[in-house]
Amino acid sequence: MSDKHMSSQFDADLNLVSSKVLEMGGLVEAQITRAMHALNDFDIEIADQVIAAEETLNTMEITIDEECSNIIARRQPAARDLRLLLAISKTITNLERAGDEADKIAKRVKRLAEDGSSRTVNIAEIKLSGEMAATILRRALDAFARLDTVAAAQIVRDDKAIDEEFRAFVRKLVTYMMEDPRTISAGLEYLFIAKAIERIGDHAKNIAEFIIYIVKGTDVRHKSRDALEREALS
Amino acid sequence: MSDKHMSSQFDADLNLVSSKVLEMGGLVEAQITRAMHALNDFDIEIADQVIAAEETLNTMEITIDEECSNIIARRQPAARDLRLLLAISKTITNLERAGDEADKIAKRVKRLAEDGSSRTVNIAEIKLSGEMAATILRRALDAFARLDTVAAAQIVRDDKAIDEEFRAFVRKLVTYMMEDPRTISAGLEYLFIAKAIERIGDHAKNIAEFIIYIVKGTDVRHKSRDALEREALS
Repeated sequence: MSDKHMSSQFDADLNLVSSKVLEMGGLVEAQITRAMHALNDFDIEIADQVIAAEETLNTMEITIDEECSNIIARRQPAARDLRLLLAISKTITNLERAGDEADKIAKRVKRLAEDGSSRTVNIAEIKLSGEMAATILRRALDAFARLDTVAAAQIVRDDKAIDEEFRAFVRKLVTYMMEDPRTISAGLEYLFIAKAIERIGDHAKNIAEFIIYIVKGTDVRHKSRDALEREALS
Repeated sequence: MSDKHMSSQFDADLNLVSSKVLEMGGLVEAQITRAMHALNDFDIEIADQVIAAEETLNTMEITIDEECSNIIARRQPAARDLRLLLAISKTITNLERAGDEADKIAKRVKRLAEDGSSRTVNIAEIKLSGEMAATILRRALDAFARLDTVAAAQIVRDDKAIDEEFRAFVRKLVTYMMEDPRTISAGLEYLFIAKAIERIGDHAKNIAEFIIYIVKGTDVRHKSRDALEREALS
């Protein structure tokens, strides 16, 4: 995963911490998929599973972060190795937040299912964007594992589609609510679910930007999509 | 701001980067206050000022982050100095995000003002929570400047009040919208404004947690309020 180091123990440290990031990412991805499954079937049991697993992600974030700072203190890395460790520290924050969003979705699904007002709104856009968000996160983790900047640039581009799906859903929701004000309460629950999915896409995009930073040494956050792409392909 | 170091140049580096964090924080605070001012008066000009200043915060985040990694690579700090630098790197992400939320508020204020549908909803809770969010962020920055863990613990506690204000507003909004469906479109704009303010409170809370991490060396993220307080006061 990295260039030549002074010690192979250092390589082993970096590989171990990287593999933990991927493990954490796999769990977040599973949480999102389960939350969308719970939404689809109004399955309270699955929603409860998502909520119960949230704690594990919190612990993983803290453990990995501690290992990153231990490695920095012990090995005093520079250049790309230091960038990798700093980027991991931020990547796991994004992963934990994406997991938080899955937890929020699960909680709202429970509320909707318990209220029984659950089937009043057509949520095709939410389901679609939920799948897109899970996919984009998986691709971000794959790109991280291979430090693939080309894939990372494409992820930043694709996050735009999730944002557009979100806006389309909000517009549709306004129409629904105006036509039948009884849908308002459930509609707002769905709005927050859609917002949570949009946030997951943002976290995947952030992770993709860190990949470019690790490999190229350029911080591409806040850059235009075109500038970012030039950097990734350079 | 820190214990004994090998070199006073190192102290100077740390002080400089810390002062830049406070400068950035001051700008974020001003952005929030201006965004709330724009909301209060439906002042498009002030909203535009907020939107124009957003770019500066992006640049500040990237510059400070670069300085942090440069100092780590050059000085190879350990213990509290390393924690300070790692915490600064995460603090500025939270500051930048809080600034993003001010930008989002300004954009929605513009849309509301341009639609003319602006005065249909009583937004007392939003104004109150906006003031609370600006205050809590200022207190987080003060606590950071003094590395005051007791103040930090109180900030984490007080963020709860902002969250409660947000939930109260959502409940009120549902009633409004059901009584008069013509308020739905504007209502959703206000909902996102309220959500943005709630997020600003979360960012201030995150910054407060990093202060405890710097001083005590314990990562208190995801801990219960009571456990966090014990840590801060220990």
